[in-house]
Amino acid sequence: MISRRQTRRVTVGAVAVGGDAPIAVQSMTNTDTRNPDATLAQIARLADAGCEIVRVAIPHADALPGFAEICAASPLPVVADIHFDHRLAIEATRLGAAKLRINPGNIGSLDRVDAVIEAAGAAGIPVRIGVNAGSLATEYQDRDWPLAQKLFASAVSYCEHISGLGFEDIVVSAKASSVNSTIEAYRLLTNELPYPLHIGVTEAGTSLSGTVKSSVGLGVLLAEGIGDTLRVSLTADPVEEVIVGWEILSALDIRRRGPELVSCPTCGRCEVDMVPIAQEVERRLRSMRTPVKVAVMGCAVNGPGEARDADVGVASGRGVGLLFRRGEVIRKVPEAEIVDALMAEVEALDRELRAAEK
Amino acid sequence: MISRRQTRRVTVGAVAVGGDAPIAVQSMTNTDTRNPDATLAQIARLADAGCEIVRVAIPHADALPGFAEICAASPLPVVADIHFDHRLAIEATRLGAAKLRINPGNIGSLDRVDAVIEAAGAAGIPVRIGVNAGSLATEYQDRDWPLAQKLFASAVSYCEHISGLGFEDIVVSAKASSVNSTIEAYRLLTNELPYPLHIGVTEAGTSLSGTVKSSVGLGVLLAEGIGDTLRVSLTADPVEEVIVGWEILSALDIRRRGPELVSCPTCGRCEVDMVPIAQEVERRLRSMRTPVKVAVMGCAVNGPGEARDADVGVASGRGVGLLFRRGEVIRKVPEAEIVDALMAEVEALDRELRAAEK
Repeated sequence: MISRRQTRRVTVGAVAVGGDAPIAVQSMTNTDTRNPDATLAQIARLADAGCEIVRVAIPHADALPGFAEICAASPLPVVADIHFDHRLAIEATRLGAAKLRINPGNIGSLDRVDAVIEAAGAAGIPVRIGVNAGSLATEYQDRDWPLAQKLFASAVSYCEHISGLGFEDIVVSAKASSVNSTIEAYRLLTNELPYPLHIGVTEAGTSLSGTVKSSVGLGVLLAEGIGDTLRVSLTADPVEEVIVGWEILSALDIRRRGPELVSCPTCGRCEVDMVPIAQEVERRLRSMRTPVKVAVMGCAVNGPGEARDADVGVASGRGVGLLFRRGEVIRKVPEAEIVDALMAEVEALDRELRAAEK
Repeated sequence: MISRRQTRRVTVGAVAVGGDAPIAVQSMTNTDTRNPDATLAQIARLADAGCEIVRVAIPHADALPGFAEICAASPLPVVADIHFDHRLAIEATRLGAAKLRINPGNIGSLDRVDAVIEAAGAAGIPVRIGVNAGSLATEYQDRDWPLAQKLFASAVSYCEHISGLGFEDIVVSAKASSVNSTIEAYRLLTNELPYPLHIGVTEAGTSLSGTVKSSVGLGVLLAEGIGDTLRVSLTADPVEEVIVGWEILSALDIRRRGPELVSCPTCGRCEVDMVPIAQEVERRLRSMRTPVKVAVMGCAVNGPGEARDADVGVASGRGVGLLFRRGEVIRKVPEAEIVDALMAEVEALDRELRAAEK
């Protein structure tokens, strides 16, 4: 249904970004890079949650030895995130970075940007030109333009400069904390540049408001076919960013990781206690990787229809649940046994599907 | 930036829906309607969170006396949600319902639908024709069409029938648990029908996945100017539905209720413990109604830019925070005092703004 915008393809370690590669989910560590053990432990948790590319900050030179250790041991390709000091970026290309992220606007001069690009070219790794509303190119900062236009103009001018050096291994982002400005900036970029786009809403906020802002902003862009890799920004454990990123891709049926759970809003028609049942089913589904569709429904209105449409479903009423498997009623179970009975069916189907894959 | 689709205007109690009326946030009680005290207590909590229209289920005739009590005492207009038994809908029009919600597909026959419409006309209240993927019109249920087409065709055929009776006080919804099908169904409806649209993704799931699915689905529709009232469906406390509904409208700058908080994702550059600071600021902002923009930023990269752009902001680094008010640096505070100092500025600004309003 969604027609994806065509972009060039780059590779970040073993992960392709752009072209017709799957839209990659990424996040960023918030541990101290000088502590490689803590950072690698966080990367392991991120990988487990489905993170495919991880970004690590190098704020000062004293983070470089840790960064090298992290690159050597990380199961995911590592992106070096560098601001202000271009020498850190050049060092990072020699220490195992799979990609650089810089914002040329705060690197100091175009000569310094050129030195970074030369080092990336020598290492054969791509560079993300990451423009943010909080650090725009100085020549556009004070113009009386809409923010989206300033973000767009900053990103395009840097890309043109770098492309002029013969370097095309570029990924572009242009993020604002305003969802509308972010959407508009990416719409402009997708029509102008051939490079893969890294999409995200920056400084999106705490778990709840950040989840909503990222879902709305990235949802609108992805529904228009825009975006080759995404990061959800939350002021929270970065594992949550990865979970939300996958939920956004699943919501639009772009990519799915593991099962889908459909559950009804509870209402005055509900005759079983749905919230704990749905939460427990969601928790137990989290470790599964097979893309089964599971429905947990609380009444006779939409329940049987949705439960029938799922691979495994339960439609409840008056303290009992009617179990469905692929559209067929299997049996009736008492309320207290709904979760176990449903999960037994889901796990049986999961085993069958995994056996069939082999 | 968003150009809203034009629809007719109806009124639900004192709340206008459609035309150029603000997009109304609604929810549904999940208490037992036979217990008016519990239901009214929930309605009070919903109203406090910003709910503007509340829906209450009438599953059986024994809920009718409670429904009458609820309508008489509710601070919000009450919508009667009825399935299967058209006599309950007719009774509800006499007991104070501000609107009916039926799905003609499960009312039994068009004669019964006609009787409901006649009663609504006599009471002078609108009717929502609420089609769901789980209960489609029988004539379309088994067609080999995409789900969006079946939802659309069901809704249009009912609307045409009802309009043929001379009744135009209609609101329409066509919800599926699939975000793409929901989006597509509403795109078709907005081009065909003049009636206001109630938008939502049904059976969206538990808090996290439901929040993402609703934010993506409603975000895409609202960004296209589609939707006159919304309900977020979550398998959770309905107060959460209202909070998420407002977050979606705020994300697109369509409507805002209270302050906006911009906070950075934490990363390896962060030198203060941002997550608890941002969460505590979010918690304290929740009771405020003035639309101030507050930024809580953890480093020197995007921090000063975003903090400067906010009404009140803090950019932190190495255990201290630099406080900004409307672009000007006010002072430096130690990490432990950031929240109190920031909130003191926010509250002072809130008082000024409220004084200026009077």
